[in-house]
Amino acid sequence: MAWTLAEIAKHIDGVVLGDASFQVDSFATLKHASKDQISFLSNLKYKKFLATSSAGAIIVSAEAASLAPNNAIVVDDPYVAYAKAARLLNPVRFYNPGIAASAVISAGAVIHESASIAAQVVIESGVEIAANVVIGPNCVILAGVKVGTGSRLTANITLCEGVQIGARCIIHPGVVIGADGFGIANDKGTWIKVPQIGSVIIGDDVEIGANTTIDRGAIEDTIIGQGVKLDNQIQIGHNTIIGDHTVIAGCVGIAGSTTIGSNCVIGGGVGIGGHISIADGVILTGMTMVTKSINSSGVYSSGIPAEPTAQWHKNVIRYRQMDKLVTRVNELEKKLI
Amino acid sequence: MAWTLAEIAKHIDGVVLGDASFQVDSFATLKHASKDQISFLSNLKYKKFLATSSAGAIIVSAEAASLAPNNAIVVDDPYVAYAKAARLLNPVRFYNPGIAASAVISAGAVIHESASIAAQVVIESGVEIAANVVIGPNCVILAGVKVGTGSRLTANITLCEGVQIGARCIIHPGVVIGADGFGIANDKGTWIKVPQIGSVIIGDDVEIGANTTIDRGAIEDTIIGQGVKLDNQIQIGHNTIIGDHTVIAGCVGIAGSTTIGSNCVIGGGVGIGGHISIADGVILTGMTMVTKSINSSGVYSSGIPAEPTAQWHKNVIRYRQMDKLVTRVNELEKKLI
Amino acid sequence: MAWTLAEIAKHIDGVVLGDASFQVDSFATLKHASKDQISFLSNLKYKKFLATSSAGAIIVSAEAASLAPNNAIVVDDPYVAYAKAARLLNPVRFYNPGIAASAVISAGAVIHESASIAAQVVIESGVEIAANVVIGPNCVILAGVKVGTGSRLTANITLCEGVQIGARCIIHPGVVIGADGFGIANDKGTWIKVPQIGSVIIGDDVEIGANTTIDRGAIEDTIIGQGVKLDNQIQIGHNTIIGDHTVIAGCVGIAGSTTIGSNCVIGGGVGIGGHISIADGVILTGMTMVTKSINSSGVYSSGIPAEPTAQWHKNVIRYRQMDKLVTRVNELEKKLI
Repeated sequence: MAWTLAEIAKHIDGVVLGDASFQVDSFATLKHASKDQISFLSNLKYKKFLATSSAGAIIVSAEAASLAPNNAIVVDDPYVAYAKAARLLNPVRFYNPGIAASAVISAGAVIHESASIAAQVVIESGVEIAANVVIGPNCVILAGVKVGTGSRLTANITLCEGVQIGARCIIHPGVVIGADGFGIANDKGTWIKVPQIGSVIIGDDVEIGANTTIDRGAIEDTIIGQGVKLDNQIQIGHNTIIGDHTVIAGCVGIAGSTTIGSNCVIGGGVGIGGHISIADGVILTGMTMVTKSINSSGVYSSGIPAEPTAQWHKNVIRYRQMDKLVTRVNELEKKLI
Repeated sequence: MAWTLAEIAKHIDGVVLGDASFQVDSFATLKHASKDQISFLSNLKYKKFLATSSAGAIIVSAEAASLAPNNAIVVDDPYVAYAKAARLLNPVRFYNPGIAASAVISAGAVIHESASIAAQVVIESGVEIAANVVIGPNCVILAGVKVGTGSRLTANITLCEGVQIGARCIIHPGVVIGADGFGIANDKGTWIKVPQIGSVIIGDDVEIGANTTIDRGAIEDTIIGQGVKLDNQIQIGHNTIIGDHTVIAGCVGIAGSTTIGSNCVIGGGVGIGGHISIADGVILTGMTMVTKSINSSGVYSSGIPAEPTAQWHKNVIRYRQMDKLVTRVNELEKKLI
Repeated sequence: MAWTLAEIAKHIDGVVLGDASFQVDSFATLKHASKDQISFLSNLKYKKFLATSSAGAIIVSAEAASLAPNNAIVVDDPYVAYAKAARLLNPVRFYNPGIAASAVISAGAVIHESASIAAQVVIESGVEIAANVVIGPNCVILAGVKVGTGSRLTANITLCEGVQIGARCIIHPGVVIGADGFGIANDKGTWIKVPQIGSVIIGDDVEIGANTTIDRGAIEDTIIGQGVKLDNQIQIGHNTIIGDHTVIAGCVGIAGSTTIGSNCVIGGGVGIGGHISIADGVILTGMTMVTKSINSSGVYSSGIPAEPTAQWHKNVIRYRQMDKLVTRVNELEKKLI
């Protein structure tokens, strides 16, 4: 299937420079695009690649439009426009409504007739599956779960008892939502389990990456706000609250009872301690270690980047001698006064 | 369903102050409890919240008892008492004994009649499932696995060949126990696999969080002691041994052939190298990097917490210049002697 | 079953010292081996354990051969020889060809008659499963996936649409390959999804550990080279390229669009940022934080190892005061000139 540049421009609110009837059938990078493909330039740092691109059309900002060698579609934000145009050219997969013969659905579950329930799925009683929901193969939906309109679960996902998923969520394979939080009490040397009786509430338009885990609350609920985007292998502890439109990259761990604001951007591998709060609009760079609350928006970091191991050894030793060094400087200052 | 304070007090070995016939039906936090709910105060730091709580009853220590606005149950350890009372009010889920029609059970498996095997489960030959075990939906139990009395596997769990699970264990979704350890040998530039012929032995009363992985031993077994509690997304390498009653928070990685003592407390995101040993009673704070054995109990840490990124940049540069700084101080000292 | 030392020596290209007709039936460590078992010594650091080992035979290098108390098999590389001999004594599990009755196979899938498809597997249309492939219980193979000759998927694995797996790969439980990469664009405060239209290409002889996730590319493909070995719980972002024969230990996170060379060795818990490149032959020690490209082979590290918490507190404070310390040293130098 092919689209004219006019069709694409209309979809992304752009202006065609060149032949609006020119047709493209797929996206490619500037470097590898052929004549029947469309590409984009969002970071002006790479504008030098425009001249040599064979792409039949390129989505660009006004600033770079003159550099496009063939046709261009000029937009305000080429990255957002690319996202929208790529969806036009690559529509989301269609799933037939209905319930696969091998799925095991409890009598008490309510499943909308437009929902698609794949093979080997297990749905327990009290579950409510809204319109246009897709539950992929081998997903397990335990008792009392609610999944909102248009949400899609890919495969091998577990939603534990009573969890609530909003509308238009996308949940990738291996995700576990609503497993017990890590609640233990030390009873004279033996750890006993603290029942985890809260649940998990996921807002609308949330995306959750592969093998991410979100624990149920101890007493109250764990809450993920509207439009939150979570990458793969994130661990979210019980009673954590994540504000609307916050995005979190892969391998982040968030301990329990922590509140994270709205519109935060959290880099990969960040660790966030329990019982603290992070303000709205905080940006944490990758692998940052957060042990205390952060009360104002801004960019925060920690960690020391890689260096050759011999140098690292030396610096670690110096680090451990810093106290001694301060003492030596104190002595020097005394002598000089 | 509702319980009188007398019933609850008897269960947790407490003394009622107030109306012992007063009834509550559920737990809530001090802040959000209503009159028909019970709450607790374990950390005296929060005792200011007692006065304004609407809870019908509060579990407290003797020290804070006079501050409870309504009824109280006085106990030695309010957190342990809360854990026990919450279990009374929220009994563990009941599963019907028997084997779901869609489960696929090999002829050679021995499953106790009181066990509950859910839909879409696969159990291979030689497996032994003890009394009152629950195997949740879509779990895969490979050949020769043994699961002890009363253990419960939620869903989507994989137990690989020959793994042994003790009694009363709780295993959350996505857990993988007994996959091959990371054993490779470099055969003139090509990595070849070292067969992983050991197994995994899990003690009694162990809890294992969602998506945690525990590898089988290379030659001997990987061993998890009695009463160990593991949070989510922990990785335990082959031939690691974890002592009784040690607890490990989420996202911890433990490389192979490491021995961890009993009664340790390991914070989230900690990394522990291979072929080392950690003494009994060691506490590691979150994100600590352990590269050498720790031979005596105590609290250990590493990592530098978050700071504003501009400051971080400056400090990283200073860190890299430390060696030069030491040289400069050496020079100053020479001049002054 | 038992093997003579002659048979084993022939398999590993070694020379028997002692009784070549002596039989052993299994591998054990030097410390725990009994007379009917074979062991090995690869690290000469442990040669003191040879004298007291009861092993019926020991695989050793020429250097240590004289110390073996009973029979020995002398080889060039005892660790590689152990790997090969252990495979001889512990052959890979045999799976019957054919498709389990409970597996759900789409009409359009092409499955070689020698492949083994286990219970509860779901295979969608367009999938191609080559000869001698094993697909373990509860695996989900989405539309258009290709799995090469002799590859083995243990259980509970998800291969998303169009993913290509080479020959002789081993994939452990919980692995997710080809889930959407973390592509989002900020459309005036709301994050919208960037369609992930690339795929994942996995080379031959790749092993992938439990619960590891490898995302599909945004436009082009994510590529894992020949002979790459990945441990558990690794996260590989979209469009990452990993060179041949690189090995990566557990809990490593690699952000998107990063290129890693061939023959690298990456330790556990390492974090690697996006859009960078790592040269061939780079070794990264555990928990290293890589934020910039590494352009030449060698060993690189970062992170400060654990110390007693009181000392850690002091050092963190000193770290934060380094700038001040430099100023003080500057002042001292001025005074002395």
